[in-house]
Amino acid sequence: MPSVRLDIEYDGTDFAGWARQPGRRTVQAEIETALSTLLPEPVALTVAGRTDAGVHATGQVASYEGQPAPLGGLNALLPADVAVSACAAAADGFDARHDATSRRYRYRVLASRRRSAFERGRALWWPHTLDRTLLHECAALLPGTHDFTASTPTETYHQHFRRTVLAAGWAEQGDLMAFEIEADTFMRHMNRVLVGTMLQVAGGRRSVESFAALLDGAHRRDAGPTAPAHGLYLVAVSYG
Amino acid sequence: MPSVRLDIEYDGTDFAGWARQPGRRTVQAEIETALSTLLPEPVALTVAGRTDAGVHATGQVASYEGQPAPLGGLNALLPADVAVSACAAAADGFDARHDATSRRYRYRVLASRRRSAFERGRALWWPHTLDRTLLHECAALLPGTHDFTASTPTETYHQHFRRTVLAAGWAEQGDLMAFEIEADTFMRHMNRVLVGTMLQVAGGRRSVESFAALLDGAHRRDAGPTAPAHGLYLVAVSYG
Repeated sequence: MPSVRLDIEYDGTDFAGWARQPGRRTVQAEIETALSTLLPEPVALTVAGRTDAGVHATGQVASYEGQPAPLGGLNALLPADVAVSACAAAADGFDARHDATSRRYRYRVLASRRRSAFERGRALWWPHTLDRTLLHECAALLPGTHDFTASTPTETYHQHFRRTVLAAGWAEQGDLMAFEIEADTFMRHMNRVLVGTMLQVAGGRRSVESFAALLDGAHRRDAGPTAPAHGLYLVAVSYG
Repeated sequence: MPSVRLDIEYDGTDFAGWARQPGRRTVQAEIETALSTLLPEPVALTVAGRTDAGVHATGQVASYEGQPAPLGGLNALLPADVAVSACAAAADGFDARHDATSRRYRYRVLASRRRSAFERGRALWWPHTLDRTLLHECAALLPGTHDFTASTPTETYHQHFRRTVLAAGWAEQGDLMAFEIEADTFMRHMNRVLVGTMLQVAGGRRSVESFAALLDGAHRRDAGPTAPAHGLYLVAVSYG
């Protein structure tokens, strides 16, 4: 069956997330609706990373079975907060979710006493104590295979809680800090709980050791709060 | 009389401009309202650059007569699309408008066939022919004193049309082009007409010579269209 790969960027602010939900504005529904006016048959999208409400994407990938739609027409039909950068034939049977070998996410933090009008909804504003050295120490513990049970809600559809982190680190550009993490797959809220917990460490409210202890299987209540959705971006998906 | 200087950043998207207008959401009204709850007397703001609807600012300056308000309280009262980075006592009689010696504006253009979900409302998307060399040639003509009658609407409150441009140029960062211009003062729409006309030159629809001819006094109809407000930013104001 011929398959099509879509490369997608969206500002998650005004979306109830990727996945179609009745009566809610979702990225999936916007794109499927636009495609339905360009293609002879309706299509169902498969996505590499199902992002939650408010989460952004610069490098989301989705796929469907069928023929490519013209890129200009597709973007013309989409609202301004979603843009498709490619819509092209892929290998037969290509599946954006199952064929992905890793995903990379970024969490942006504005570490400043000053609020920013332009970073609202795009970075977590964090005017609190932040020891950057401790952030780096936490991130350095992440690569490898760990049990991330403590980093996802207790009511979960996940059945396996071990994930392999390929790379993790904090980048600094003045007041803007960005946590980048690449793993085989992620669980719901995993990045946001990791960030929320690292911010507790960097604020002197828990130790690096207590962060390390969460990586070998622990209860959700042992970890820190879930950082807000609006700092998170799906930035890239890798295939084989 | 003691004076106060405010340094202000705003995303102009959802504002009807800086200047207070009955029944419209304006930056001036938001800040004056916030100040009125923090200060014993209402104050009236004087501003360095009265921006139009949709125009942004990263370095706007305003002043009022009275005492400074606490910065944390002021930002807590302001909506998320306005932020004040300083509210401090200035020299007695300081006037943000009359004391300014120059203003600097930036106009951002996304020169790409691809639309961007994150640059919507923040850069002009320009998927058309764009000869960057011609943009640089136009900008190089701007420094000096010229008659900018052709760059402002014919129905105008301006009485003098000569302005002195201190610096002008296009910066490139991949697909993002930014036109930066510093002048003593600007007229209404002046930057947007200059950009709209330069884009005509860069698209092969008029000559560099015809752009040069506009700088010695010409009719508004001789210039190009007014580029959209959402690409424009007031980035800095200089004092003495």
